[in-house]
Amino acid sequence: MISKKMEGLVKGSSVIRAMFEDGKLLAQKYGAENVFDFSLGNPNVPAPKEVNDAIIDVVSNTDSVKLHGYMSNAGHDEVRDIIAQSLNGKYGTAYDRSNIVMTVGAAGGMNVALKSIINPGDEVIVFAPYFGEYDNYVANYDGKVVAITPDIDTFQPNLSEFEDKITNKTACVIINSPNNPTGVIYSEETLKGLSAALEKKQRELGRTIYLISDEPYRELVYDGAYVPWVPDYYRNTIVGYSYSKSLSLPGERIGYLVIPSDADDHEDLASAASVATRILGFVNAPSVMQLVVGKCIDASTDISYYERNRNTLYEGLTKLGFECRKPEGAFYLFMKTPIEDDNEFAGMARKHNILLVPGSAFMCRGFVRIAYCVSYETVKGSLPKFQELAAALGLRGVS
Amino acid sequence: MISKKMEGLVKGSSVIRAMFEDGKLLAQKYGAENVFDFSLGNPNVPAPKEVNDAIIDVVSNTDSVKLHGYMSNAGHDEVRDIIAQSLNGKYGTAYDRSNIVMTVGAAGGMNVALKSIINPGDEVIVFAPYFGEYDNYVANYDGKVVAITPDIDTFQPNLSEFEDKITNKTACVIINSPNNPTGVIYSEETLKGLSAALEKKQRELGRTIYLISDEPYRELVYDGAYVPWVPDYYRNTIVGYSYSKSLSLPGERIGYLVIPSDADDHEDLASAASVATRILGFVNAPSVMQLVVGKCIDASTDISYYERNRNTLYEGLTKLGFECRKPEGAFYLFMKTPIEDDNEFAGMARKHNILLVPGSAFMCRGFVRIAYCVSYETVKGSLPKFQELAAALGLRGVS
Repeated sequence: MISKKMEGLVKGSSVIRAMFEDGKLLAQKYGAENVFDFSLGNPNVPAPKEVNDAIIDVVSNTDSVKLHGYMSNAGHDEVRDIIAQSLNGKYGTAYDRSNIVMTVGAAGGMNVALKSIINPGDEVIVFAPYFGEYDNYVANYDGKVVAITPDIDTFQPNLSEFEDKITNKTACVIINSPNNPTGVIYSEETLKGLSAALEKKQRELGRTIYLISDEPYRELVYDGAYVPWVPDYYRNTIVGYSYSKSLSLPGERIGYLVIPSDADDHEDLASAASVATRILGFVNAPSVMQLVVGKCIDASTDISYYERNRNTLYEGLTKLGFECRKPEGAFYLFMKTPIEDDNEFAGMARKHNILLVPGSAFMCRGFVRIAYCVSYETVKGSLPKFQELAAALGLRGVS
Repeated sequence: MISKKMEGLVKGSSVIRAMFEDGKLLAQKYGAENVFDFSLGNPNVPAPKEVNDAIIDVVSNTDSVKLHGYMSNAGHDEVRDIIAQSLNGKYGTAYDRSNIVMTVGAAGGMNVALKSIINPGDEVIVFAPYFGEYDNYVANYDGKVVAITPDIDTFQPNLSEFEDKITNKTACVIINSPNNPTGVIYSEETLKGLSAALEKKQRELGRTIYLISDEPYRELVYDGAYVPWVPDYYRNTIVGYSYSKSLSLPGERIGYLVIPSDADDHEDLASAASVATRILGFVNAPSVMQLVVGKCIDASTDISYYERNRNTLYEGLTKLGFECRKPEGAFYLFMKTPIEDDNEFAGMARKHNILLVPGSAFMCRGFVRIAYCVSYETVKGSLPKFQELAAALGLRGVS
C-alpha cells in the first residue's frame, strides 16, 4: 500500500541496499582492509578542528532559545549576512541576507529550488554524466528530465545539442561543477556558451529559464584550478551549496541557496524558497550547524589528502593502461572501461574486491566512477588489485 | 516565474510575514515588555542541561567521520535501537531499529510518511481544528484534505461524520494528540471508536488505510494525564515524533517515525520512508542531534513552567468571563471568542497589544489559539490587557 511513485524507487533502493550488504559480506569474508570500496561519496577526511571548536563555543555561549529555537525559515540573519559577505569578498558580488536561504544540505536546497520553479510537465535539462538523484528530485515535482548526451572527450556540456533541446517547457537547467562523477570543472568558455544559448532562447521563447548550479565541490579543486562564479555569466542563476564536502559534514545537512537580486522575480523566488523550506518539512536548516558554519566561514578541509589520493590513483591507473582524465576537482575519477559494458566491468572489478559505480548510473555508459574520498591505504592497497584486473583484461601498461 | 503551486502559498506567506513585521513594529512602538505575543509555538523554556552536555560529549568523544558523516538514510543504528528500547519500556511494545526512521523533525516525518503513502487524488482525513500546515504537506503529494467538522464541546474527533467520509480514495488519516490548537488529549474511547471505524471501512473497502499519529506534544501533559499509545488501538498506525517541544529543540530538526511490524506492508513502508527521506533532500536527520537524543532519551523539559502558565492563564481568563477548556497537554489554550468573528476578535485583541491566531487558521471559527510557551511575565502582564478587552466587550467576570 505504498504510493505508486515510491514502488519503483523502493525496488531500485533494494538493489543499492543489496550492493551495500554485498560490500559488508566481502569485508567479513576477506577482512575490511582487503576490500577497496570506492562506491560512496562519504568524505573520509575529518572535519577541520574549527568545526568542533565552534560547536562547543556556540553551545557554551548562546542562549538556549536562540541556539535551539525556531528562526526565520530562511535561516539565522547573522549567518546569512556572514555568508553573503564571504561570497562578496571572493566574487566581488553585492549580496546581502535577502539573497541567502539556508538549506538542509545541497539536496535540500535542490528540492527547495525545484519546488519553487517547476510546474508539472516542465522540462529540466541536465548534462550527462550527472548525479542520478537529480531524476528523483525533478520527479518529486512532476518535472521531466531532459538529458544531453555526454562529450566523452572533454566532459564539458555539449552546447549545440543543449540549444536544440531548449523548448517552451524548459523551466530550468542543472549544472554541477566541479562535477560528480567526472571531476571536471566547467570552463569559462563553457559558461559563456551556456549563457549565450540560454539568453537567446529566453528571448525567442519569451520565458525565464533558471540555471541551478549545484556546487557542493566548489572548494575541492587541485593545482590551483579556478571555478568560475556562475551568476557572473548568467543572470538567472540559483547557486546551491553544501558544507558536506568542504567541511566534511555530510551527515549534518547544512548548506544554502544563493538567489541573486538580478534574477527574474527575485523576491518571489526568495519567498517561494522560504515557503518551500517550510512546507517540505525542513522548516529550517539545523540551528546549531547554521551558527557553526557562520563561525567557520574561512575554514576548509585538508584538500591535500584528496590530492594525494588523486595523484596516486591517476598515476597508478594510467600506468596500468587504464584511460581516464585527471580530475580537476571533487573527489571522483571517471575511468573508461576497457570493455564496453560498464556493469560487466564493475562486476569484474568486484571479483578483485574493488567496488566501483558503473557510469550507467550517471547516464554515461562505458565508464566507472571511482570515489577516492577514502583512506590512502585503500588507494595504495587497491593498485595491485587493479593490476590483477588489468592483467585479466590484457591491458598493456607503461611499465 | 515561480511555480503555480507556490504562487498562492507565497501570497499567504506574505500575510504571515506581515503579521510578524506588525508584531515587531508594536514592540518598537510600545516596548517588547508591553506586547503580549501568543502567536507562535516556539518554546521559551531552555533545552534541559543534558542536551548541551551531550552535544559537548559526542563532539569531544566521537570519531569525526562517524560524528559528521553519512549514515543509513534511516539514521544511526544505535540511536534507533535506543529509541525502540525506550518505547518498549514505556509502552510494552517490541520494536527494534527496523521500526524507527530518524527524521528532520515531525514536519519532515509527516512529509516522508505522506510521500510514502499518497497517490495523486488520494484523500487524507483530518479532524478540525487542526494544524493548517497539514494542508500544505498533503498538497505536496497532490493529495486532497478532507476535514471533519469540530465537536466544539469536547474537541474529540466527530466519529460518526468520520466514518461517513471514509471512501475508497482514503489513503490515510492524521490525528494530533495532545492537540494543537486545543490542548485536548484524544481519549481511549476516541481511539477505540476511531479504530473500529477504520477496521470496518478497511474490510468494506478492501484497502489499507494508515493512521498517522503526529505526536510532538506527547510528553507535554499536565495533572498526570495519560496519552494512549495509538498503535495499541490500531495496527496500521505510523507515529511521528519530534524533540522540538519535549527537549525544546525546534530549530534542530530532529524526530522520528515509528513504523510497527504489524502494519500492512511494513517492510515496503519502512523502505519507502528511507527512500523518501533521501529523495526529498533530507538525506538523513542531522547526525550530531541524532547522537544527542540517543544520549538524552530520558531527559525532559521543565513542564512545570508551562503548567504555571496554563494555570495562571486559564484562571485569569475564565475569571474575566472568557470561555475555554482547560488544556490537558501541549502549550495551547483554545478560547471561544465572545463575538462570532474570530478574525475580528484577534484584531480587537491586537489593539490591546495581544497577538493571537484566529481559529479559522485551524478550520475552526469562533475561537482563538493562545500559545502559552512564553515567559511567565508575558502571561501575567497580559491579564490586565485581557481585562481591558473583556471590559470593552462587556463580559461579566466572576470578580
